[in-house]
Amino acid sequence: MISIHTEPQPSDLGDVRVTNRAVVLRHVRRHAPCSRADIAAHTGLNKATVSSLVTELIDRRLLRETGLTENRVGRPATMLVLDGEPYAALGMEIGADELVVVAVDLGGNRLLTWRRAFAAPSASPAETIRALAGLARRAVGRITGQGRTVLGLTVGVPGLVDTTGAVPLSAALGWHDVAFTGELRTALRDPDFTVAVDTDANLAVLAEQRHGAYAGTADLVHLTGGVALGAGVLTGGRLLRGHRGFAGEIGHVPLDPDGPRCGCGRHGCLAALTSLPAVIHRLLPDAEDDGPVRDFLPELERVLTLARQEDPTVLAGLAEIGRHLGHGVSVLANLLNPEAVVVGGHLATLGPWLLPAARDELAARTLAPEAGGCHLDASTLGPTATALGGATAALASVEAGRLPVP
Amino acid sequence: MISIHTEPQPSDLGDVRVTNRAVVLRHVRRHAPCSRADIAAHTGLNKATVSSLVTELIDRRLLRETGLTENRVGRPATMLVLDGEPYAALGMEIGADELVVVAVDLGGNRLLTWRRAFAAPSASPAETIRALAGLARRAVGRITGQGRTVLGLTVGVPGLVDTTGAVPLSAALGWHDVAFTGELRTALRDPDFTVAVDTDANLAVLAEQRHGAYAGTADLVHLTGGVALGAGVLTGGRLLRGHRGFAGEIGHVPLDPDGPRCGCGRHGCLAALTSLPAVIHRLLPDAEDDGPVRDFLPELERVLTLARQEDPTVLAGLAEIGRHLGHGVSVLANLLNPEAVVVGGHLATLGPWLLPAARDELAARTLAPEAGGCHLDASTLGPTATALGGATAALASVEAGRLPVP
Repeated sequence: MISIHTEPQPSDLGDVRVTNRAVVLRHVRRHAPCSRADIAAHTGLNKATVSSLVTELIDRRLLRETGLTENRVGRPATMLVLDGEPYAALGMEIGADELVVVAVDLGGNRLLTWRRAFAAPSASPAETIRALAGLARRAVGRITGQGRTVLGLTVGVPGLVDTTGAVPLSAALGWHDVAFTGELRTALRDPDFTVAVDTDANLAVLAEQRHGAYAGTADLVHLTGGVALGAGVLTGGRLLRGHRGFAGEIGHVPLDPDGPRCGCGRHGCLAALTSLPAVIHRLLPDAEDDGPVRDFLPELERVLTLARQEDPTVLAGLAEIGRHLGHGVSVLANLLNPEAVVVGGHLATLGPWLLPAARDELAARTLAPEAGGCHLDASTLGPTATALGGATAALASVEAGRLPVP
Repeated sequence: MISIHTEPQPSDLGDVRVTNRAVVLRHVRRHAPCSRADIAAHTGLNKATVSSLVTELIDRRLLRETGLTENRVGRPATMLVLDGEPYAALGMEIGADELVVVAVDLGGNRLLTWRRAFAAPSASPAETIRALAGLARRAVGRITGQGRTVLGLTVGVPGLVDTTGAVPLSAALGWHDVAFTGELRTALRDPDFTVAVDTDANLAVLAEQRHGAYAGTADLVHLTGGVALGAGVLTGGRLLRGHRGFAGEIGHVPLDPDGPRCGCGRHGCLAALTSLPAVIHRLLPDAEDDGPVRDFLPELERVLTLARQEDPTVLAGLAEIGRHLGHGVSVLANLLNPEAVVVGGHLATLGPWLLPAARDELAARTLAPEAGGCHLDASTLGPTATALGGATAALASVEAGRLPVP
């Protein structure tokens, strides 16, 4: 195999220090408590460099010392841990029927998880942004009241997000050309932390990479369940964004031209066969007797109950939906060869009934042996994965070795 | 948008020097002839560092001085160019009916391009590797006879290539589990240059990135034409390889379950609708009257002649194939959001008739506006793109700033 081509940039000693600071922080995050000598031994940095970096990081309250260990030969060493206290980041999600906010500190500890019922699909973008800002301000108030500095806020949106932070299209929310980041900054009265937006799928896969069952995996996909389906893709440890940031649209891969009509106007797309509305429509044909379903959670509960009761019609329907899911995932596996595809939302909730059939279909339809090594599993992160990923994203700058603005 | 997550590695002064060496080489490659002062001004490196690096690179014959320029204010400066003379790399391709070898020097200049008729699909893997080694040895003899050192050889194969340099599967060649790199090294009698293998599509997109119409583009796809279809994908400037190196399999994305039977056993895959055998079968139904077609080039010539004569049946068939191609490319555009998809092989040859319909279909089926900015064009590199990419790949180590073994 050949080397990966990258575009080298000039290095100077400042860059080296940023990189080495990131290396030290990463080592402590993974191996705390650990000593300066441990860091030097495991990172290859010399002891003087480690000592100087650690002093700076303690000054900036990114690390702290925590007693001595005597569990070693020679002089006892002072142990270091991440200092979770002074810094926090927020992540939010605009879901189909709720807004979510999560705050985490630099150690990845959750400081708060709030969910507020809000029907964004039937609100205007301005109303949604106002509601988001209100929830965010309350969370910021709680965090700063604890003496912490908020470093950033990243919001996950189900739709296309461009490189300027605008949302050209969200079919799930009914949005067109919303200048999201700018409007949210204004609604937050130009805060002194960073405000960013990303797709719900991209943030969810960042949460998987940090906190999920496949944490640390470099080639990983999170496939969102819900009203829309999107893929967040990590390849070689980096988010796959594409030229304009629009990568990850898997919902309209064509599986069955004779299948049900899709929101995009065509028939038999993956979304038309496996999204939450499609699953309810397929398994509960009477659900729409009183008009279109708007609140899917009670219907999903009914499906779950029937599945647990081993209702043969529902089990057969779930197996069929699972085959379509596996078919769609095989397109990801063939094109991206991930180590794992993790499904969220209703696809995770219904995982015990969907995934066995999906895995068979994935194995049968992937060209590489053993599905190219691709696992297919339900997310373990629950309904706040995207918001958790948003908080993780907002900490990335510090973790990359850049010091927070004092 | 959030920062891209990477795994920082410790830096030391040696790494810095490698990186800075790469920066200097890249600058000279793009802007030669240029002076030491030009390099310092454009790279941000200080003049003493540039001077020290240039001295070392001249000593190792990676750069050379080329007279003075007086076209400036002040003292005339000594101009630098890449020294193409002492180093070369080889790339090869196993095509359906030929073997190709290309040699380039460090400046990217082609030193030789040889094509030898060879029907690999009807030969054994051992016979093919023997034929490759024979051709490679003659090319190496020519290059070393010119006083050049061969740095490496990279071979492009139409099939799956794993991270050990083996080929688990090539449907186009009829290969299963061929320990390719090891066998080729043995056939070459353990040469002192690196021997590597990659997919034909990965090498072709490297050639596009360096020498094609979209040179320098960070998010780029090359879709090979021929007996099989494969995608070579660059994302953020890096090859997308996936967990086991099997990324890029786009040929079996399902487009039409009622379509023609595919080699994989299913119906209506992209390959069953747009590969070279599928195109000949669709447009020249009489071609198989005397048995299966084995040599496709005369048939492709017949299609070209009929298209130029504006034969209405052939034109309608090409437009239909173009729509299928655009449909398949829309899956790439939705999932990867590249800046361009460049098609090779017969898809490039027939591009004037395929691409108008394909572009319409791509625009109609891509969720993002304007197909997410994705251009769809025929490759300008002709039938030796993969071999050229192999030679490019073999030079990557030096271009990344590592000095060749003396």
